[in-house]
Amino acid sequence: MSQTELNADVKKALDALTGKTIKHVFFVACGGSLSVMYPAKYLLDRHSAALPSDCYNADEFVQRDPKTLNADSLVILCSMTGTTKETLRAAEHARSKGATTIGLSVDPSSPLSKAVEFPVRFEAPYTTGVPIDAVDSNYSRLYQIVMGLVKIYDGVDKLSPFLASLGNLQTAIDKAHVHFADLFETYAPRFKDESVVYTVASGASYGAAYSFAICVLMEMQWINSQAIHANEFFHGPFEVLDKDRAFIMMMGLDETRPLEERAKGFLDRFGSPEKIMVLDAQELDLTGIDDEFKGNLVPLIFFDALWRFAYKLADLRQHTMLEGRRYMKKISY
Amino acid sequence: MSQTELNADVKKALDALTGKTIKHVFFVACGGSLSVMYPAKYLLDRHSAALPSDCYNADEFVQRDPKTLNADSLVILCSMTGTTKETLRAAEHARSKGATTIGLSVDPSSPLSKAVEFPVRFEAPYTTGVPIDAVDSNYSRLYQIVMGLVKIYDGVDKLSPFLASLGNLQTAIDKAHVHFADLFETYAPRFKDESVVYTVASGASYGAAYSFAICVLMEMQWINSQAIHANEFFHGPFEVLDKDRAFIMMMGLDETRPLEERAKGFLDRFGSPEKIMVLDAQELDLTGIDDEFKGNLVPLIFFDALWRFAYKLADLRQHTMLEGRRYMKKISY
Repeated sequence: MSQTELNADVKKALDALTGKTIKHVFFVACGGSLSVMYPAKYLLDRHSAALPSDCYNADEFVQRDPKTLNADSLVILCSMTGTTKETLRAAEHARSKGATTIGLSVDPSSPLSKAVEFPVRFEAPYTTGVPIDAVDSNYSRLYQIVMGLVKIYDGVDKLSPFLASLGNLQTAIDKAHVHFADLFETYAPRFKDESVVYTVASGASYGAAYSFAICVLMEMQWINSQAIHANEFFHGPFEVLDKDRAFIMMMGLDETRPLEERAKGFLDRFGSPEKIMVLDAQELDLTGIDDEFKGNLVPLIFFDALWRFAYKLADLRQHTMLEGRRYMKKISY
Repeated sequence: MSQTELNADVKKALDALTGKTIKHVFFVACGGSLSVMYPAKYLLDRHSAALPSDCYNADEFVQRDPKTLNADSLVILCSMTGTTKETLRAAEHARSKGATTIGLSVDPSSPLSKAVEFPVRFEAPYTTGVPIDAVDSNYSRLYQIVMGLVKIYDGVDKLSPFLASLGNLQTAIDKAHVHFADLFETYAPRFKDESVVYTVASGASYGAAYSFAICVLMEMQWINSQAIHANEFFHGPFEVLDKDRAFIMMMGLDETRPLEERAKGFLDRFGSPEKIMVLDAQELDLTGIDDEFKGNLVPLIFFDALWRFAYKLADLRQHTMLEGRRYMKKISY
């Protein structure tokens, strides 16, 4: 696939939507797959006046059964393997209401791919161990869908610069790995014995903070965590801060950066530098990414970069990543 | 005020909205005040096909500046004192876009009351120390607004049974205090030395879990916490569970109860009973609350009941509630 063309699966879905009435978008998934929906909603919020949207955990979506869900809804679902039961139920529920469904998974023959009208295949390094280009990731596919919707329903076509930016994302990620290597090397030993590590972010980056907190720190390392919204931090959570408390602070480039800067200022005042790891996107080389979309693409760099930190932490804790689970995919529940 | 009449401030706002086009509702606040917006959105999601909505932290709302925000938007804000700077900025931002604004605070002359078109006064025991009737609380006012909107924009008038239910809420809360007293007495000593206590809930009750995690455990007791969504629990967070880990599990009566039941089942299997405190609404006497609205009113009982547990915990930890803060309202930030 050329880096400036829409993914073929995405194009098929968008072509089918052209001319069709859509009044509401639901982003529906669980856990790590839900976390990538948050930046997608941020992108849609910023660019679409025509399409309100909600992000829901799949079972919450089914049981809550929002009354805005109907034949004029688009429901976008994601499950890496395409087998997550909650997400399959959500796809069935959406179709029973007449909604249009798009389902992202790595396998075109997965149950999710079969359950939706428009399956979209993406690539994930965690399934095959083979490095991928970020343009083929789930978040890239999601972003393409969102900007395609903006073109159709708001009549604003920014696909070309957006796709060009996505095409340059992997290079930016590779450079970020080099840039953050020393930081991760320094902080992994400092964090290895922590029983609690918080992540802090806002706006487009909140999903990356959520993903790292629940899928890496809690799930794979059994470290207590919470993704704290950078402004909500000041309305309660900041009281747990002292010189011993560990935080990972994400400083993005989206419109909510001032919230993150304020939180960082407070962490600098009352925390200790050895326990506050700051990922600042201002330090990154983002050549080839359009200024307008830097804020949206930075969280995708955070998502990816932090995996290296996770593996470094796992090595030091002698708590391997995927094998370190005690319940997930080991017992039935 | 009779328990079956709309609050006068709410009525004034609803009267002004009648005949006015509203296409989107934004629930905007910070921290504890944001937490009461979540059940309000749940209620609106369940009852309105006409009004999509979003819940945003106030600074996030201003900076994200969703493109759906315009003259056809209704922005509902809440700040107990009416002085929260982020919420005031959000009110100004909303008005600059031509949106209709409703602002809830305890003081009709507060900056928030002055910043919005429709101020709504509510009562809070935490400001005066004097017990209130729950029908005069912020969540009751919010719920009245929501069901009023459903009447105007969906043509479905359920105000009468809803108001009657709200009128009987305080009695249900008083009974819940008695019902939960033994539970709190038993669990306060078990939780007093915990460094991490999670709260778990879904649907209408998620806001109560969020509030207790960030405003009580973290803010007032410096206990590490996170409000874990009952299904997201299975997609990462559950890996931190072992026989020593403390959880507060809320079992509501809304449509998402099966999610909470599944999480409780897992906690029962792998946690230890001494560390899992379960608040089950099925055990409560909810006389006078309409069956249709029990699920919506239960979280308001949880919000209130858990304060007693918080005070009990504070006594045992010798860490007073409001005086136990080190930053909030003590330093400038």
